[in-house]
Amino acid sequence: MSAIEELVAEFAKLPGIGRKTAQRLTYFLLKQPREEVGRLSQAVAALTERVHACSRCGDLTEADPCAICTDPRRDAGLVCVVEEASDVAAIERSGEYRGLYHVLGGRLSPLDGVGPDALNLPALLARLADGAAVREVIVATNPSVEGEATAHYVERALRQAAPGVAVSRLARGLPVGGELEYADGETIAQAFTARRAFPGGGGDGVTE
Amino acid sequence: MSAIEELVAEFAKLPGIGRKTAQRLTYFLLKQPREEVGRLSQAVAALTERVHACSRCGDLTEADPCAICTDPRRDAGLVCVVEEASDVAAIERSGEYRGLYHVLGGRLSPLDGVGPDALNLPALLARLADGAAVREVIVATNPSVEGEATAHYVERALRQAAPGVAVSRLARGLPVGGELEYADGETIAQAFTARRAFPGGGGDGVTE
Repeated sequence: MSAIEELVAEFAKLPGIGRKTAQRLTYFLLKQPREEVGRLSQAVAALTERVHACSRCGDLTEADPCAICTDPRRDAGLVCVVEEASDVAAIERSGEYRGLYHVLGGRLSPLDGVGPDALNLPALLARLADGAAVREVIVATNPSVEGEATAHYVERALRQAAPGVAVSRLARGLPVGGELEYADGETIAQAFTARRAFPGGGGDGVTE
Repeated sequence: MSAIEELVAEFAKLPGIGRKTAQRLTYFLLKQPREEVGRLSQAVAALTERVHACSRCGDLTEADPCAICTDPRRDAGLVCVVEEASDVAAIERSGEYRGLYHVLGGRLSPLDGVGPDALNLPALLARLADGAAVREVIVATNPSVEGEATAHYVERALRQAAPGVAVSRLARGLPVGGELEYADGETIAQAFTARRAFPGGGGDGVTE
């Protein structure tokens, strides 16, 4: 396979990139200066070389623990549970939330064979048992069917393992059926402000 | 800048890729196996390392001369003149054309400061003078304002330098104002079949 065909094939593997777009991107790069193409190649390579999961919260980071976990200005009493690292980035862009995170690394999806064991949940329970400084966990899974199921599973696990910790979820300002990753910052900010306790739950109530 | 932000910035430089899409592509890659990301990085790097312009026709190639120029089954009596190497790829996909190519490397665009000197036209005239085996030149510039101006400029240059060579252009099966690169193979095939001589031109008439 030629170098052009190879790159077209690689681009076409990316989500939302069809064969025509892959060809367009490849021929665009062929017209760019060599240094510019080198920067893209190196940026792709650096991704796997430099980025890994934070050993504490599971967010993607270059330092370990990540910059959020080690930031003394952040409220260590709040932990926001999300499905993916891209959700952390989306919430950070909203500028509303000043607590810590915990990345599950997925969501319950029985049809895809994803069960509770695939979630990074034991590490969260260990964090709550360990420091005991956490007063509230905000479950911010996606407002989809799988995200809702995951939220309820996480809530039950938290009630059992850490009954003194309040558990809340983001307000339904998020468009139902959508993806948190693509929500705009203002919507995310409002959803944080109007978050509410799980009905009938224990704990000390929602803080703030 | 973090590795994630760097790659988002590089992706966002590509045509048709906005910041949100760049973020989505980056987080997609973060979930892929290391080997898969390495393949993309290497495919991008190989592009500038392995691909260059054919010294004869100007098409992008890894060998020199390119596989089309050296293919004995192709009709060396026909030369199709295109603006960019991506146009060669589009025409090849149509499967209709079995002659050779000549890539101008651009089109006349006074507003962008692109004049005749920027076109790879002297090499075409040299090819016609050299072998004298060429009986027809098919001008296949884009059906846009700049492409039309380029076609007429090329036609006049060919009439002067090689009066015995027929000059034709692709039939107006192509959508006017569009880009040849994005036309489907069937449209391109029909445009080749119904190509016609420049009105009032000399030469031996259009072949086939």
